[in-house]
Amino acid sequence: MFGNLQKNQRKSLAASVALVAGVSAAAFAFNPLSAVAADHPNLVISAADIDAMQGAIEQPGRFRNAFLTTQSAVDRALEAPIAVPQPADAGGGYTHEQHKKNYQLMYNAGVLYQITQDAKYAERVRDILLAYADMYPTLPLHPKRRPGAENPGKLFWQSLNEAVWLVYTIQAYDLIRPALSDSEAQKIEQGALRPVAKFLSVDSPKTFNKVHNHGTWLTAGVGMAGYVLDEPEWVEQALLDLDKSGKGGFLRQLSTLFSPDGYYNEGPYYQRYALMPFVTFAKAIENNEPERGIFDYRDGIVMKAIDTTIQLSYNNLFFPINDAIKSKGIDTSELVLGVTIAYGESGNPQLLDIAARQDQILLTGDGLKVAQALDAGAQQPYEFKSFAFRDGKDGDEGALVVLRQQVNGDQALVFKPAAQGMGHGHFDKLSWQFYDRGAEIVTDYGAARFLNVEAKNGGRYLEENETWAKQTVAHNTVVVDETSHFDNNLQVANRNHPELLFFHADDQVKISAAEIDSAYPGITLKRTLALVNNPDNGSTFAIDVFDVESRNKHQLDLPVHYNGQLVDTNFKLQGYTDSLRALGKENGYQHLWLKASAKPATGLAQVTWLNDNGRFYTQSSLVDGNTELLFTELGANDPNFNLRAEKSFIARRDNVDKHTFISVLEPHGEYNPSKEFTLKAESQVSALSHQRTGDLELIAIGGKNGTTQLLAYNRNSDVDDSVNNRFEFDGSEYSFNGRAKLFQIKN
Amino acid sequence: MFGNLQKNQRKSLAASVALVAGVSAAAFAFNPLSAVAADHPNLVISAADIDAMQGAIEQPGRFRNAFLTTQSAVDRALEAPIAVPQPADAGGGYTHEQHKKNYQLMYNAGVLYQITQDAKYAERVRDILLAYADMYPTLPLHPKRRPGAENPGKLFWQSLNEAVWLVYTIQAYDLIRPALSDSEAQKIEQGALRPVAKFLSVDSPKTFNKVHNHGTWLTAGVGMAGYVLDEPEWVEQALLDLDKSGKGGFLRQLSTLFSPDGYYNEGPYYQRYALMPFVTFAKAIENNEPERGIFDYRDGIVMKAIDTTIQLSYNNLFFPINDAIKSKGIDTSELVLGVTIAYGESGNPQLLDIAARQDQILLTGDGLKVAQALDAGAQQPYEFKSFAFRDGKDGDEGALVVLRQQVNGDQALVFKPAAQGMGHGHFDKLSWQFYDRGAEIVTDYGAARFLNVEAKNGGRYLEENETWAKQTVAHNTVVVDETSHFDNNLQVANRNHPELLFFHADDQVKISAAEIDSAYPGITLKRTLALVNNPDNGSTFAIDVFDVESRNKHQLDLPVHYNGQLVDTNFKLQGYTDSLRALGKENGYQHLWLKASAKPATGLAQVTWLNDNGRFYTQSSLVDGNTELLFTELGANDPNFNLRAEKSFIARRDNVDKHTFISVLEPHGEYNPSKEFTLKAESQVSALSHQRTGDLELIAIGGKNGTTQLLAYNRNSDVDDSVNNRFEFDGSEYSFNGRAKLFQIKN
Repeated sequence: MFGNLQKNQRKSLAASVALVAGVSAAAFAFNPLSAVAADHPNLVISAADIDAMQGAIEQPGRFRNAFLTTQSAVDRALEAPIAVPQPADAGGGYTHEQHKKNYQLMYNAGVLYQITQDAKYAERVRDILLAYADMYPTLPLHPKRRPGAENPGKLFWQSLNEAVWLVYTIQAYDLIRPALSDSEAQKIEQGALRPVAKFLSVDSPKTFNKVHNHGTWLTAGVGMAGYVLDEPEWVEQALLDLDKSGKGGFLRQLSTLFSPDGYYNEGPYYQRYALMPFVTFAKAIENNEPERGIFDYRDGIVMKAIDTTIQLSYNNLFFPINDAIKSKGIDTSELVLGVTIAYGESGNPQLLDIAARQDQILLTGDGLKVAQALDAGAQQPYEFKSFAFRDGKDGDEGALVVLRQQVNGDQALVFKPAAQGMGHGHFDKLSWQFYDRGAEIVTDYGAARFLNVEAKNGGRYLEENETWAKQTVAHNTVVVDETSHFDNNLQVANRNHPELLFFHADDQVKISAAEIDSAYPGITLKRTLALVNNPDNGSTFAIDVFDVESRNKHQLDLPVHYNGQLVDTNFKLQGYTDSLRALGKENGYQHLWLKASAKPATGLAQVTWLNDNGRFYTQSSLVDGNTELLFTELGANDPNFNLRAEKSFIARRDNVDKHTFISVLEPHGEYNPSKEFTLKAESQVSALSHQRTGDLELIAIGGKNGTTQLLAYNRNSDVDDSVNNRFEFDGSEYSFNGRAKLFQIKN
Repeated sequence: MFGNLQKNQRKSLAASVALVAGVSAAAFAFNPLSAVAADHPNLVISAADIDAMQGAIEQPGRFRNAFLTTQSAVDRALEAPIAVPQPADAGGGYTHEQHKKNYQLMYNAGVLYQITQDAKYAERVRDILLAYADMYPTLPLHPKRRPGAENPGKLFWQSLNEAVWLVYTIQAYDLIRPALSDSEAQKIEQGALRPVAKFLSVDSPKTFNKVHNHGTWLTAGVGMAGYVLDEPEWVEQALLDLDKSGKGGFLRQLSTLFSPDGYYNEGPYYQRYALMPFVTFAKAIENNEPERGIFDYRDGIVMKAIDTTIQLSYNNLFFPINDAIKSKGIDTSELVLGVTIAYGESGNPQLLDIAARQDQILLTGDGLKVAQALDAGAQQPYEFKSFAFRDGKDGDEGALVVLRQQVNGDQALVFKPAAQGMGHGHFDKLSWQFYDRGAEIVTDYGAARFLNVEAKNGGRYLEENETWAKQTVAHNTVVVDETSHFDNNLQVANRNHPELLFFHADDQVKISAAEIDSAYPGITLKRTLALVNNPDNGSTFAIDVFDVESRNKHQLDLPVHYNGQLVDTNFKLQGYTDSLRALGKENGYQHLWLKASAKPATGLAQVTWLNDNGRFYTQSSLVDGNTELLFTELGANDPNFNLRAEKSFIARRDNVDKHTFISVLEPHGEYNPSKEFTLKAESQVSALSHQRTGDLELIAIGGKNGTTQLLAYNRNSDVDDSVNNRFEFDGSEYSFNGRAKLFQIKN
């Protein structure tokens, strides 16, 4: 591979990379490095790793167990004959799945060859590669490519899968290269590896140069092939665009696709997918050219991206914002690789906590480090934090805000003043979700999709992903006039974003505010969400203040999507009991059955539900006598039963140009039919009030126990701890410093 | 207590008890035994137990842990002042709950006194008892008693709770009696214990003599008081009716309330509740008068009842037939006591498996045995069996049939040709349920009730328990003309029951059939259900053949209530997409929204759904072109949101006097969005046929893999293994011996 710079040169180069990239990736150019005869392997796994791994499988422990499991699976797979079929099927079909199986088997067999030096593993990889070398040069574009698509593949219907094939296969080749004769290597390189690399780079310039997750897979595959095949030019192109301008390429992708906080624009579900080529290629770069300081690039963006992916999870599952399959979590293979490599780089024992939950040991050098550290019991609890993860490449396009506390249950409030997140983004500006005791309480539908279930639109996104899941009313945020944010126009949505006004977290109060004036013309939406707890009695509340200001009068809907069974309301419901109609005609409303409605009197409107874990939740809202509450169930206009029958109640205020929705959500009590007891099934909230005086906002939650909890906060976006705030409440004077404080007032 | 007979007398007496009781409990009479000065304690816990328990808390292990936990809870409770309030509230109210807390605390403190000999525990029990002795003689009937009810209490609104109070309190008194002065004992006995015992016996003759679970609590309390207070007459009355005729009393209850297989008429949910006084009093009898051989009574009915309660569970939860709260399972306190006492009696190591799942150690002599055996790792896997649990005191009133197999997942099929089960029974003759991989697949609604949730009808059974949960259409059985079995007439239902025709279980085939001709006038319902597996490929099917024969033409509905998301049908659905109506007007139909309907062409109609565990289920039915399929969701005419939104599809055949519903249910594949794979989302069934030739029935399930699975069974109710059955299928000859056989036929 390439010659190494001296150690002392490394830091300065890394610094210059970071500096230059920070200004303009286009202005950055590597010095071309001369090629030398390659050591194998040296991508994610290095030759030095192999020595340690060979030693480790002789010792009992997690690494040996993982080795034995993989060996047994591969040995079983070797019993089947080689199959390298002529490409014919789209995703899910036989040839598609077989080519996927091939690269996975080749990779695993390659690893086993290095560890065991048993020739049978190398021979199988060799034979499969020779078959590819025979076939690939003859292949036309894939018959199932999308008509007119710019990213067709040959082995697969799209080039994305072809790049994934290359990322695995080049590693497999690297692992077994020592077992090949030069003529075998020649045939495989000329017949398969070089043609695939060429097809994915110079023959697919648009996708290769695209600053997009697909581009990352292509550049990773081609760049890694460059290291293995001694083609430094490919590495340069992979890093800097085919024309080496820096306008595209891996570094540009690292500079653009993640925010400075390591947040990926599409949200955690796609972040964990996008991570794979980033960490794989980064590790290969580090092993081949440590002088590039790739893990230091952009202030350590690769490591931040891995860590942020973990942070954006709750009870091991990712927050399901945007198009997300809700059962995806931190044990996905991509994040296993990410955590393993991050631990190898950092040695951070908190990452071992995540690795322990993942319970998957990789057969790599870093995997060995993880296994040995877990065997030694070195893990420390991973700290999930309250944080505003800034969005946008420069961190100025809103944020995804997470408020957390461990009081009377592990609670998380997710607030989404984030940017749109491209085609997989939802029209849900300023939406929120709430989690408690391991469960999703105020919910997000996620994506409407049954992944790989043929009967459900071939396993692709369902039509209802557009007609329901992306629509604003499918989320917990304000809908104006039954139309979605940006009128469902993705281009407009991508050009606009909310502004994060403030974020603050202390022991008792976590609070954040944001606003957006572009979701609807002439309308400003501003929301403040807080998670507070009273240390005296362990009570907790999520507090929501949603201001809408408009030039004209509109209908405003604010849904709460919840999981569970409605238990009680403190107002009379008008049920639609023997016939149901859809609530509206379009923008998601056509999918909602209206099951009941109510118009509570002025004051406190309370809705209590019970979730499957036996916990009660009461939403107490301050209403003005003109707010309707609509109780809905999802499933109208869904002839194929594609939607889950989820529930919501919608606060509707019609004909207003200025309105503030104020509510508090209170977890309480326990329903335990197994042990035959029920505790605190009723809300403890007896009153709610809201005052604004100058920059200060006061939310007073009156309790049945005679104590009022008063949240006071300064809504000015520039507030630091030196600011002293004074106010009068109920005849008494109060003061606090900084952003916010929760007061307990005995009546 | 009473004098002991010689050991050799015991068996013969026990035998005569069993014999005589088998003929007529009324004809049986004990010899009156002379009273002697009582040893304390000697009810569930004996003085000998105490010695062992005192030793055990010095050793590390489960028993010591349980002791420390109880001690810490009781010590905390002792910090509160004594409260023995004037009775005022009904269930859930303050005085009701306080009197419950008092007896639980007295019992636990009594146990701790015996173990620790610390006087503070005895003193608290004494002081509470003295307060009761002051108050009880002054009490009128409870102010919240039901008007005109025959079972009012004084401390509680009904005498049932008063009896529970006595069962606990007499044990507490027994435990602390050695710490009392004679004058204290005198006051407590005269002021509280004797008046309560008198109130519950001679003053409540109807309830005391009632052959019913309430009667068991009263007889247990009074009988145990008889032992402690040296009143052998009370024991006699408790065992044999107030007039000692044997027409009522504990022995009669044991002879009548359980079937010979230990099945309790109301089903497992109430069986586990009913168990408590039976096992408690039985243990007290055994400790005081082992010569009665109470555990041998009626061929060991107490032990059978405990074991059957365990058998009637799946994945630790009871089968939710009749009025049942679905989260109730084997870890309930009643069954903890039952398993503990049963282990003490039998030493059966399989019971330790259940005790380990219960994870609760009782501070009794038997509890110590369980703890020590678990500490020693002596448990063996509990064997859940396929069995027809006969119903009715003589075992001839139908059965609750459980078919189980551990093939490709732990499967259970529950078939319910049981008797009505009194007031908590449902009108669901011949219904079934299916379980797979830990989950309920074909479901039973259970009871419509939110136990103790005040906002839901005060926590009592909801109105919807009558209007939905008990109705036939709420179950997986045939409904004729949209009316429920026995036209919802409980008296008629209690007088009639299905006949079990046969039950058979071998490795590949578990099968049972039953019929009833009284559920609808002039109509015979006959159902055969089988659970089969193919050992070659691990596939399993539940097979259902439901015959209806009638004098006149009727509309027949056969619902399948399922958990999950509809994935696919092999016929076109007509969805009611923008408005919904209730399916009917009454008998449960008014609660069903009709969401879609279909009339599949002649042949195979398939419905596939996906459950929350990611397993697919396909119901393949043989239809004749005139069968409608109605897809429903529960929730119509439910203004208070009391019902869960559960799903079903109903096969409807109108205007027939003879019809056979034939279907197979097939678990298959896996949906794993977390790991991004989906396997076998489609049914493997491509054809279904049914033939009758003589006594033989043939169900042929054609598979897409080219193999036909052919279930052949002899439907004659008298078939033994010597019967040879021969038949021709598809041109070939087959034969088998006995009830049934599953053939694999390669096409």
